[in-house]
Amino acid sequence: MKKLVIAYSGGLDTSYCAVSLSKEYDVHAVSVNTGGFTKEEISHIESNAYKMGVTTYKNIDAVATFYNKVVKYLIFGNVLKNNTYPLSVSAERIIQAIEIVEYAKSIGAKYIAHGSTGAGNDQVRFDMIFQILAPEIEIITPIRDQKLARQTEIDYLVANGIDMNWAKAKYSVNKGLWGTSVGGEETLTSEKPLPSEAYPSQLEKTDEQKVTLTFKKGEFVAFNGTEAAPEKNIEALNEIASKYAIGRDIHVGDTIVGIKGRVGFEAAAALITVKAHHLLEKHTLTKWQMQHKDYLSSFYGMHLHEGQFLDPVMRDMEAFLESSQENVSGDVVVTLKPYHFSLDGISSKHDLMNSSFASYGEENKGWTADDAKGFIKILGNQNKIYQLVNKKS
Amino acid sequence: MKKLVIAYSGGLDTSYCAVSLSKEYDVHAVSVNTGGFTKEEISHIESNAYKMGVTTYKNIDAVATFYNKVVKYLIFGNVLKNNTYPLSVSAERIIQAIEIVEYAKSIGAKYIAHGSTGAGNDQVRFDMIFQILAPEIEIITPIRDQKLARQTEIDYLVANGIDMNWAKAKYSVNKGLWGTSVGGEETLTSEKPLPSEAYPSQLEKTDEQKVTLTFKKGEFVAFNGTEAAPEKNIEALNEIASKYAIGRDIHVGDTIVGIKGRVGFEAAAALITVKAHHLLEKHTLTKWQMQHKDYLSSFYGMHLHEGQFLDPVMRDMEAFLESSQENVSGDVVVTLKPYHFSLDGISSKHDLMNSSFASYGEENKGWTADDAKGFIKILGNQNKIYQLVNKKS
Amino acid sequence: MKKLVIAYSGGLDTSYCAVSLSKEYDVHAVSVNTGGFTKEEISHIESNAYKMGVTTYKNIDAVATFYNKVVKYLIFGNVLKNNTYPLSVSAERIIQAIEIVEYAKSIGAKYIAHGSTGAGNDQVRFDMIFQILAPEIEIITPIRDQKLARQTEIDYLVANGIDMNWAKAKYSVNKGLWGTSVGGEETLTSEKPLPSEAYPSQLEKTDEQKVTLTFKKGEFVAFNGTEAAPEKNIEALNEIASKYAIGRDIHVGDTIVGIKGRVGFEAAAALITVKAHHLLEKHTLTKWQMQHKDYLSSFYGMHLHEGQFLDPVMRDMEAFLESSQENVSGDVVVTLKPYHFSLDGISSKHDLMNSSFASYGEENKGWTADDAKGFIKILGNQNKIYQLVNKKS
Amino acid sequence: MKKLVIAYSGGLDTSYCAVSLSKEYDVHAVSVNTGGFTKEEISHIESNAYKMGVTTYKNIDAVATFYNKVVKYLIFGNVLKNNTYPLSVSAERIIQAIEIVEYAKSIGAKYIAHGSTGAGNDQVRFDMIFQILAPEIEIITPIRDQKLARQTEIDYLVANGIDMNWAKAKYSVNKGLWGTSVGGEETLTSEKPLPSEAYPSQLEKTDEQKVTLTFKKGEFVAFNGTEAAPEKNIEALNEIASKYAIGRDIHVGDTIVGIKGRVGFEAAAALITVKAHHLLEKHTLTKWQMQHKDYLSSFYGMHLHEGQFLDPVMRDMEAFLESSQENVSGDVVVTLKPYHFSLDGISSKHDLMNSSFASYGEENKGWTADDAKGFIKILGNQNKIYQLVNKKS
Repeated sequence: MKKLVIAYSGGLDTSYCAVSLSKEYDVHAVSVNTGGFTKEEISHIESNAYKMGVTTYKNIDAVATFYNKVVKYLIFGNVLKNNTYPLSVSAERIIQAIEIVEYAKSIGAKYIAHGSTGAGNDQVRFDMIFQILAPEIEIITPIRDQKLARQTEIDYLVANGIDMNWAKAKYSVNKGLWGTSVGGEETLTSEKPLPSEAYPSQLEKTDEQKVTLTFKKGEFVAFNGTEAAPEKNIEALNEIASKYAIGRDIHVGDTIVGIKGRVGFEAAAALITVKAHHLLEKHTLTKWQMQHKDYLSSFYGMHLHEGQFLDPVMRDMEAFLESSQENVSGDVVVTLKPYHFSLDGISSKHDLMNSSFASYGEENKGWTADDAKGFIKILGNQNKIYQLVNKKS
Repeated sequence: MKKLVIAYSGGLDTSYCAVSLSKEYDVHAVSVNTGGFTKEEISHIESNAYKMGVTTYKNIDAVATFYNKVVKYLIFGNVLKNNTYPLSVSAERIIQAIEIVEYAKSIGAKYIAHGSTGAGNDQVRFDMIFQILAPEIEIITPIRDQKLARQTEIDYLVANGIDMNWAKAKYSVNKGLWGTSVGGEETLTSEKPLPSEAYPSQLEKTDEQKVTLTFKKGEFVAFNGTEAAPEKNIEALNEIASKYAIGRDIHVGDTIVGIKGRVGFEAAAALITVKAHHLLEKHTLTKWQMQHKDYLSSFYGMHLHEGQFLDPVMRDMEAFLESSQENVSGDVVVTLKPYHFSLDGISSKHDLMNSSFASYGEENKGWTADDAKGFIKILGNQNKIYQLVNKKS
Repeated sequence: MKKLVIAYSGGLDTSYCAVSLSKEYDVHAVSVNTGGFTKEEISHIESNAYKMGVTTYKNIDAVATFYNKVVKYLIFGNVLKNNTYPLSVSAERIIQAIEIVEYAKSIGAKYIAHGSTGAGNDQVRFDMIFQILAPEIEIITPIRDQKLARQTEIDYLVANGIDMNWAKAKYSVNKGLWGTSVGGEETLTSEKPLPSEAYPSQLEKTDEQKVTLTFKKGEFVAFNGTEAAPEKNIEALNEIASKYAIGRDIHVGDTIVGIKGRVGFEAAAALITVKAHHLLEKHTLTKWQMQHKDYLSSFYGMHLHEGQFLDPVMRDMEAFLESSQENVSGDVVVTLKPYHFSLDGISSKHDLMNSSFASYGEENKGWTADDAKGFIKILGNQNKIYQLVNKKS
Repeated sequence: MKKLVIAYSGGLDTSYCAVSLSKEYDVHAVSVNTGGFTKEEISHIESNAYKMGVTTYKNIDAVATFYNKVVKYLIFGNVLKNNTYPLSVSAERIIQAIEIVEYAKSIGAKYIAHGSTGAGNDQVRFDMIFQILAPEIEIITPIRDQKLARQTEIDYLVANGIDMNWAKAKYSVNKGLWGTSVGGEETLTSEKPLPSEAYPSQLEKTDEQKVTLTFKKGEFVAFNGTEAAPEKNIEALNEIASKYAIGRDIHVGDTIVGIKGRVGFEAAAALITVKAHHLLEKHTLTKWQMQHKDYLSSFYGMHLHEGQFLDPVMRDMEAFLESSQENVSGDVVVTLKPYHFSLDGISSKHDLMNSSFASYGEENKGWTADDAKGFIKILGNQNKIYQLVNKKS
């Protein structure tokens, strides 16, 4: 029987795929944990997978991989798509696709199935990465091809002995290390916000709280003084910050297929980490490091979002970003408040705002009034000449 | 007697300058209102000016000019320096300098004096614009040149019959249409936030409130349904939003003279207007409009901050920005909350997220599954070839 | 009968299309002259078109349109794709597509046919522009769909009474206002240059000759002192420069479909005009105008090449480019030589290299040694602090 | 006596400095060879230096250092300032300054003298690098400070027993590994080219000659099949290509002090190497690698030109550039001709234009006509929607 790997989430679509493909293929289900699953959830997905008739089920723990291959660079680049969205889902899909195709190759599967529709971004990210890394593997996408109604899928499953509760949740929620996306009726049009209850975290704490993020060469190496792997620190920060209902927003952006999309998200740790890291950079990087990083980071986010993670230019950009983090080390103190947070300040031995050399607006130590006048005179040279040459008479 | 125009604020430094320069020059004091002055304040400054011995005093109302020449483009470009600061003071100084030099030329003055020190940005902005627009006018800067201690200045004024209360405020506050800057002991080092009481506005309202910003070709043409000049709408919005203590933050950035600076600010209207405008753009601009606008806007902010407003490249960028606003028209609803705000959504007849063509994640109407497959296959071509050619064996 | 417009070139592919489609459709042939056709050629194409059974034939003279909508901006931007190719063919196809779809709409045709294959760029440019400007029109592409062998097409034509000499030329040559492309066996692989005889122009003159290009606001308004429309000046320059066999090169670049392509070209007038214009800009634009123009021009070329001419960002870029040309007026003298040319120099009343203000390397007039020292001291501030803060001990 | 290091070239200005400074300081002369000196010239400079009264003279061979620290990255980035100038002199000055300051520190000198005027770029490059790397060292610049007439310097030297022939050459020529600059009366204004005889190399060969440049990870590792250090290959190529008088041009650009400058140069090897390297990249890099490299390279050149070599952003850019060269390996064949050259083609096992996958314009192997149609349909989505939403009715 033909060996097939299916990206299995346990939802209606991938359940339908698992059952129907099992009739023709030797189906091996896999789910990739990029931060959203508890042990109980994984165990639940596993037992369901076997009910659908799959030969094997595997859950790949890719949280550390996800951090090391993608999230790290999103932090280095302070990447927020359209200045809002930490690219939570976009980034996860890439790593999931890579893990799945590597798994398929490792077990000698010649087919990979996934449950994406033909309308969105995920199909592009999955297909492209599969095709690039394993052009010999055929991609099977029943949902995209057959465009079945939800009820048709349920009926099919019942007919095949699978009778579960497939009631559609009011909000589709997608949880991962770098944030949780929330889609609902409101996000299908442009006017309305998501109601508070649509977000996974609700306000539980109202007293302000200070937390300290320690960065070393741009990586989030300690939280409140306790060292741990950055992905663990992100999770720990998220645990605390979520109680303040921090990090809710709606992303509006361009899909890879050219239409506009709108999606809610909650990403307390991602937003706090990016903003804290950015503040530390403002103190430790030169003006031109910040300027050119911005250009590259903006495109890094675009290419990642569009599934172009395997383009070698991404490695080139990562080399730039990595180099730029040489001195991005120090502590950032953040105050958590209901629904928002503020950055108190930083301390770093690489801080270029060092009052022993000069202080803004205060008496200058490094130069004289005449130096300043000379500086300004020459700085204005070109535009002085421009005006003289081109002045209207 | 030699005619001199002095940029007069009424503070200790410019008072000292006015008195001492009046001994040698025919001094004409001028202050340029870019949004921060009430009538009472202007009247107070005027009467003080005459006490310092100036021949004439003039207050130039440049609020509309400020909006039309600079703020408009900062909104078009969603410009927030280092992703934080609306460039409140930087932008004002430019217009003030232009107004002052034009005034000096209009009255035939051959000298302009200002009270900047040699340590900061303002001297650069003032001197450069004066030199570019009027190379024949000599610039006089007693504070920069003489580096007098505060007490020396006060003693001098007393000796000249000026006995006022020059007690230094704990926080130096600079108010304008596009925001208020706040400097204090805390902003001289990197670690500490400003205390809440340092900010000009305090929390007065806690019940959420929805407001509507209407944009037409990128300009903020109506507030809560009432049409007015954009600068009036900004002021009206600021009035309401300030009661929520919205828009506080600290800007850390590079000064023109190469050192890092840190300054608090409160800019409720600026931040809300920029974020609302940006959201409307996400719905009405194409992907590439947003991407290239970001590049130009980032540099527009840098050049403006650095006093390069008269470089003709600024006019070229403004032409791009103006062109890009063709369809940026519609309403944005914003919810004001204590210390923060959120964007509800937009409505626009130019909204490209138009569900009559296609909806993200929903059944696609404009293309088939096969179209999507073909799209993805070809989109991945280059990296497929790259992997095949360069794969490690 | 269903009305169809066919983009007709007179070659084998479009002849086959015309004959076969005429059996089912009311076929109206159109060719768009963007600079490559003589009157004799047009007349020849017309008489052949009727032999293929078309109802009407129309040749649209789009040379001036081509200049005004595209070539003008390519000159403003000094656009040479990959620093080599003036985008000759890419640019023409865009205008041809627009003219064809407008013609189709004007005669009420519901179908447009073109002869592109499924392998290259032209299908993308044609289809996209047709679909964007007339989504209601169906696109018919027999060559792409049927993948017929050359001989099959010839046999079909013979069977339909068309017996012409379809011998394939050794080199496929595509001539237009902005250059001539040349494809051949050599350009299918990476190693070999095209032989000299493959190029349309051969060396006829060897004595050097000076020519003068006069620009006004960036437009090539006079050639050797004679004013004419820019597209006429380009043609006149090309006529003379081609006798020196100037402007041959090979372009290697990325197709829209993700593969690399290689194509020879000869574009004497395009290269000379762009280089002369660029030199004039070096004298008349500020440093930042040149820097930001480069960024935009590079993307303008990419988007145009990829058929995205109708994206509104192109209009925004054109607004920037137009604004930047305000002072790009003056004369440029070029020396034509066998196979190459050199730029002698420029004269312009907007020349910023004006020795009455200052001369490079000569005694400075506008500032003192102390001014220069102050300038340098402050210019180096940030990196001085950086070294002091981060120095290895 | 106070120990001073002088950057000594042997010309009138630095001879004057050496003699006059020797009266007050313990003068140690140093010249840094970045490619322009023969052994005879060095020996001549050395014996002259001692005549001027210096305590020691040292010639530092920095050719390999120059290549490794700067030229390598200029090749990786295909850097030609304003699309013309390989930054020959700009790049040399940086390395010379670094070598001089390191030498000064190694011998414990507290003063460095150089002979730059206050009008140009070199003073900025020298001063800034000295101040950044050794803020404790004082910079002495008699020429800049005293503005002496040529004859005054000569008289002074004669009075001090130095009677040499200081006749000013008609053209000031500055030779180095990466090119030779040529200044003269013609380059002081905008209109005229340099006469042929002003250039150091004259046409000696007229028969065409093919040469092969072999690159490995972007470095020029072999010339005509013989492996050697890249700087040796550059010299060998220059030796041969100069006989064809290749590489002459005039650079017009912005000086750091804001005025425009014009300078002739001859840089056969630099231009050929950059163009050959660029061609190899067009075959081996992806589209986005080329696009983003262009952005960074343009700024890399600007910053280098302006003496900002020590800004850490330069290291970040170098990391990007280095990463991008992973597959830039292969042979490039170039044909040398009188006054110009052409690129024949390349061969590389990393060539992405690999006809086994697909050929431009030929029958496609990797996708079907339907794939192409689907690709185009979705690629045009956004602008289709844009037109539908915004169409004028």
